[in-house]
This record gives sequence, C-alpha cells and structure tokens, in this order.
Amino acid sequence: MIEYRNLKIAILGAGSVGAQVASLLLEHGEELANRVGAGLEVVGIAVRDLDAPRTAEIPRELLATDARSLILGADIVIEVMGGIEPAREYLELALTSGADVITANKALLATHGPELFAIAEQVGAQLYYEAAVGGAIPIIRPLRDSLAGDRVHRILGIVNGTTNYILDRMDRDGDTLEQALAAATELGYAEADPTADIDGFDAAQKAAILASLAFHTTVAVDGVHREGIRTVTRDQVVAAQRSGFVVKLLAVCERLVDPETGRDGVSARVHPALIPAGHPLAAVHGANNAVFVEAEAAGSLMFYGAGAGGRQTASAVLGDLVSAARRHVVGGPGVAESTHADLPILPISSVSTRYQITLSVLDRPGVLAQIATLFSEHGVSVEAVQQSVVTVGGGEDEESAGATLVIGTHRATEKALAATVADLAGSPVVARVESVLRVEGL
Amino acid sequence: MIEYRNLKIAILGAGSVGAQVASLLLEHGEELANRVGAGLEVVGIAVRDLDAPRTAEIPRELLATDARSLILGADIVIEVMGGIEPAREYLELALTSGADVITANKALLATHGPELFAIAEQVGAQLYYEAAVGGAIPIIRPLRDSLAGDRVHRILGIVNGTTNYILDRMDRDGDTLEQALAAATELGYAEADPTADIDGFDAAQKAAILASLAFHTTVAVDGVHREGIRTVTRDQVVAAQRSGFVVKLLAVCERLVDPETGRDGVSARVHPALIPAGHPLAAVHGANNAVFVEAEAAGSLMFYGAGAGGRQTASAVLGDLVSAARRHVVGGPGVAESTHADLPILPISSVSTRYQITLSVLDRPGVLAQIATLFSEHGVSVEAVQQSVVTVGGGEDEESAGATLVIGTHRATEKALAATVADLAGSPVVARVESVLRVEGL
Repeated sequence: MIEYRNLKIAILGAGSVGAQVASLLLEHGEELANRVGAGLEVVGIAVRDLDAPRTAEIPRELLATDARSLILGADIVIEVMGGIEPAREYLELALTSGADVITANKALLATHGPELFAIAEQVGAQLYYEAAVGGAIPIIRPLRDSLAGDRVHRILGIVNGTTNYILDRMDRDGDTLEQALAAATELGYAEADPTADIDGFDAAQKAAILASLAFHTTVAVDGVHREGIRTVTRDQVVAAQRSGFVVKLLAVCERLVDPETGRDGVSARVHPALIPAGHPLAAVHGANNAVFVEAEAAGSLMFYGAGAGGRQTASAVLGDLVSAARRHVVGGPGVAESTHADLPILPISSVSTRYQITLSVLDRPGVLAQIATLFSEHGVSVEAVQQSVVTVGGGEDEESAGATLVIGTHRATEKALAATVADLAGSPVVARVESVLRVEGL
Repeated sequence: MIEYRNLKIAILGAGSVGAQVASLLLEHGEELANRVGAGLEVVGIAVRDLDAPRTAEIPRELLATDARSLILGADIVIEVMGGIEPAREYLELALTSGADVITANKALLATHGPELFAIAEQVGAQLYYEAAVGGAIPIIRPLRDSLAGDRVHRILGIVNGTTNYILDRMDRDGDTLEQALAAATELGYAEADPTADIDGFDAAQKAAILASLAFHTTVAVDGVHREGIRTVTRDQVVAAQRSGFVVKLLAVCERLVDPETGRDGVSARVHPALIPAGHPLAAVHGANNAVFVEAEAAGSLMFYGAGAGGRQTASAVLGDLVSAARRHVVGGPGVAESTHADLPILPISSVSTRYQITLSVLDRPGVLAQIATLFSEHGVSVEAVQQSVVTVGGGEDEESAGATLVIGTHRATEKALAATVADLAGSPVVARVESVLRVEGL
C-alpha cells in the first residue's frame, strides 16, 4: 500500500446526504486515495446535536458541534446541511480561509451564489456543486465543461422528483393530485409540508443554477417565473393523454430574442407543460430526474437518473471531492464561474411557445367561428381544434349541454396568449376556460 | 472588446469533423475567447490534398500540407484525421513538444492509448478525448470526474449509431437485415464497407475506452469480446418483441468476480442482446447513442444523444478545447489517466448473464422433460419456457411438424451455457438450435 499525504476534509451536516458521504468516504478511503494521489482524512463532521439518529453508521468521535474550528482546519469543506444560514456564513468562512468548498445546497446557490463565487475567485478557491441539481446525474460538469465550446439554446428539465412522481401516478395509475401526493408522502418522497416541491420553489432554484451555467449569465431565483402543480387536475392529464401528451413539471431555460428590443436574452421558468408522448422526457417515470439539452452543434442530449436520495447525492459530492482533491495534489487554480455573456433576464411575457387551451362552450352554430376570430384578432394562430359534445342525462333522455373545445396553437407570445385568454373568459359563447397549458418539446 | 493573448491551435484533418471544428471556431471565436480568457487562433489545418472538397467553408489560406511544422508551432493540437498512422506519430510529436492534444480517434486510443497517456504524463501535457465515444454526448468527463468518487458496476452502451439504426428499422419497420443495411447506406449512416460497424469493431473500440475509464484499468481492444449483428434475423427481432424485448447491439463493461480465482476482474464485450422493452435503452431509436451506467451510490444513470455527425462530434472537440485552453490560461498540470486499479481482464467464459435460447424440437411427449434435464445437468436454471407448435400444410390438411421452444434462463456462466448449447445441438429431440441471445438490463 502506498503512503500518501492526507488532505483534511470537514463535513458540515450528517443528515441523509452527509451520513452517506461520511460512510462512503470511510468505506472506500483507500480506493479514493489511489485515484487522487492523496489520502482523504475526515477530520470531523459538524452537527447540531451529537445524539440525533443517523441514517448511516458514523464513528461517534468524528462528530463535533464546533463547525468553525473544523472549517478552519480543513483543506476541503463539504456542506450538506442545507438552508441559508448558517450555511452561507460557514461557506464564506471556508472560502476566505482558502479551503475549497463542495455544496449540495441549491437554495443557497440560487440566492447567494454570485457572492460566494466572487469570494472564491478572489482567493483562488473553488466552489463545486454537482450535487445541487439532479442528484447523482452529472449535469453541472457537462454544462460547464463538455458543452463549453457549444452554444446552448434550450434546457427542458424534470428536476424535481417529488412532482414527477405525483404527475406520473396521475398519468399511469389514475390518481387524483391528492391521492398521488398522499402516496408520495407515505413513501417519503414528499415532506410533511410539500410546498417547496409542489409549488415549484425547488425546481425554480435548480432552473436558476442551470440557466446561469448554460448562458454564462447570472440568473437569480427571483428571475425565474414559477408555477407549481397544485392546479393540475386528473381531467387535464387524461385530456393530455388523449391528444398524445404527458403533463410534466418542467424547468425551461431558454436563450431567446427579446421581442421588445430585438436583442438576445434569457428566460428561466418553471411550470406544468404538455410534452409529446414520444419525447425522451415523457419516458421519465417515478421520482427520476432528467435534463434535456438542445445545443447548436451537439443537437439534443439527455441526462437521466435518480434526482434525489442520500446515497445518490453523496455520489455527486464525492465526484466533486475527487476533483477538488486532485487540484490540491497537482496544484494550480481551477476554473472560475463564467458569467461573461451577462444577458438580460426576460420576463415570462417575452416568451413564446405553443399552448393547448380547453374551453367549455355553448353548443350552437357559429361558436367555433367566433372563437377562431378572437384568436386571430390577437395574432395567435390556431393549429388544431378538437371538439367533443358534452351531454347530460343518459340513454334516450340525453340532450346536448354544451361542447368542449381543445385548441392547440402555433407558437405565440405569452402576452398575446394572455390577452386572448382574457377575451375568451369574457366571451358570451364561452362558458368556462377549463385549462391553459404550455406545450414544450415539439 | 477585451484584448486577450492568443493560444495557437493546429487542426489535423479537415473531414466532416475537422471542417466543422474549424468553422465553429472561426464563427464563435470571440464568445469562446470570453469563456476561456484567451484568444483561440487557428494557425493552420493540416490536410493531404489542398483541393479536396470540404463540408464546411474554410479559408483557403489556413490549409497546409506540412503537419509537422503546424504541430511544432501550436499550444494545442486537435487531431480529427482518424486512422492509426500517421495520427499516432503526429500525436506523439505534439505531446513530446509539450502541446495539449485533443483527439476524436477511438481506433488510435483503443490500440495505442496507454503509450500516448504515458508520454502525456511524462511531459505534463494533457490528452482529451470526449469526442471518441458517443459523439456529442458527454460521457468521458462524467465517468472520469463526476463518478470519480463512486464505484461503477456496469455500463450498457449503445455506442454505434449505424447498427442501432439497422436494428431499429428491423424492429419498427419490419425490414430484414439486408433491407435495413441498404437504407442505412443510402442515408450515409453506413459506409460502403460496413464491416467496422456491422461486425462490432467500432463498438469494441469504444467499449475498451469506457471500460478503461470506468474501472481504472487499461483495457485494450483485443481484450474485448466481439460479436456483430450479421447473424441477427428478422425472426429473432419478432420473437424478441413477442416476449417483451428489443434487440440492441450493446457494449457491456462489467466489474465482476472471476469464478476461477474469486477475485475482482473486468469484462468488456460487444454483442447483440435482448433488452426489456421498458428499459430506457430500448427507447433509443434511429442512429442515436446512449450509455447506461450502474454505479454503487449513484444508481442508474443514462446519457443520451446523437452519437455521430461532424457537427455533433465537433461540439465535443470544442468542449475539450475550452478545457485545454483554460488550463493554459490558469496554469498548472491537469489530471493524468487513472489506471491504479489494474484489474485483470476476464475472458467471455467468466461472464454470467441471462440467455434466451430458441430451439426447433420434435413435437412429441417427453421432449420438454429431456431438454429441461439437459439444462439442469449443466447447472443452468430455466426461468421460463414458451412453446409453439409449428404446422405444415394449411386448412384441414395441416399436420404438426414440430415445435418451437423459447427458453429463458436465470443467470448462468457463458461456460455452462456453451456446454448446454453444445449438448442441445447434439440431442436427438432437437432439430435445430435457432438462436442464442444474451439478455441484459434485467
């Protein structure tokens, strides 16, 4: 066995990810040392409560409550505690003391990323965060390095496992949203308060990180338009199936031309969307994640895998740890964040996409013509209309109560569509605007 | 506009990849300079014939026939000429002169990789090869860096677009192998001599590269067991469909325990295999590639995209170029190849997997029992049997001519299976062993 010098590793947090990081590091220490050319010595694991139960076995003597001392004695700090404070303060301390930092903390990056990257660059330290998006799926490194010579046009990401599990159950098992959420909670996919997942906050943080990387532009989480899945109904999912679509909660990051200024800009948004059933993203089931990238030269790429889980996330953390440790061994600064493009962040109103609008209308002659006119007045071009007559009663007593129109549009701006929908809602021939869904991946 | 110092780039080859690399570099030069922090100046493109037709527009004054002078004046050399010589000699010259090298040349890496990596390490230069496997799909970097802290168990790769296109046509359009190959040739997916694709040579080179990376062990191409798709019939594809499978040409790289020694070893092999229809790899259609990775902590990951094409491959080359150029700007050595594990390469006889065996047998009582006994004598456990009676004649004249048995096995070694199949072929109740296919992804 070769003798190496040891790099000192501090771990902040011993929750489901931290405990797995520690346990894998202890288990595979020798193999990792051979890959790196240096030993990886865990000097301590900072926790709030020494006696809290852990999901993996950790030697008791490694646990410590004084995070600051641990940080100041470490070459590399792994932050897997989550939350904004004191994580932000600890990482600032680690970076200013010259340690490299590895974090899985998407909330922190999406809110305080730019200032942390700035500190890192100033002192020549590195900030790694492969685990912050897509769990074990390598997506940060491919975007930052592999596609660094290409130009990314669009990212469509299923980046929240909980909502994908819920929508998948609604699609494949016929669950209502409530039933699917209950199942997700029971399986531990959803937390007691599912707001972060269901309302798209988690996905929006990841969208901010992906858009920043892909477009070399700082995108903060408040620049991300956000709609969750609370309003998605079983009826919508069934109607989507019938027209050859699947409903997914997507993080969409797009480089587009601002219709106001004619100049390039960036849009990042999270919302439920219809995806064609034959699209690779439509086959992402359960709590899995996938990121679909469209680039100028590379064409379409997809990265797929488990988006969460302590052990899976730990894999991404350890990959970053090996990178950071190799840099310590061979010397030399790493790579700073690239935000040179600094494109404007465009509001949702600047986005153009396709839509599927479901209307309950009166069942009488001339209704379709009136509605079509209304679309064309706003410059929204209709691609397809499906009409079905809704009946009340049954057998021989049935009578027509109205009809349902499902209207698919060509590409239109959000602005034009919003104006169209407002007019539809006020039209005397429309009983109700049942649903408006964006269509992506066509 | 910021003024940067220029890095000198030499390109060897102006075929479909080289021409695209040059044209993208010239088109996006300023954007790439901003990402790198240095200008990327193409000092010349080495070609054999200055007047050959090109697939992209390249300024005539950049073309040169003296590759050696170009190489000696370059900071970074991009080799996209293909073939073994003179590519090997040129890369050796580039590395010994201290230039970093980027290559898309899988044949060269699979045969002379170890000596080139050794030279690079000696002089502190870097050898990048993201484009050698899976075209634009980032797979080298994820394996080398993102999964560096994890332990890869198995890779199942669709790494040859031509054969995937052919098998996909046989599966979805009902083509015979000959019809599908003709279509692939017409579309330019298959070359006039399709041997490298059809007989699995191309996939075997990629398997050698993937296995070396995943298992930190040098795997040469002659250590890869290789079977092509020439023997795959439309009947096999139809039978596979009926039992819920798709036939794919797979590159399988596996870490396994050598049954002879009880110690860990590596198997790399290329052969047609049955994949369950619900497996993510089964949905990889046309000429696309995908690499499915099973790792200890990360679980299952998949990387999907266009596996070939000049522009797609150029994207991977440019990603490597940005990495190499950043290293020149920030200084410091890069990362050497990691072959510390140095596991033994096991022959195909040490592999165990599942099989599906199709037999034509006599249609009389007791046949199934005899065949089942024969399997069990070799320790091969039968999981499922489907029997169908084949008739000759038609209408009222039909008579039973024999039966077809499709036998699925549990996991068994290649050795045991080969012995079983030899005995089946010699059995008086077996008219013919119709096909033996491995089953992966279960």
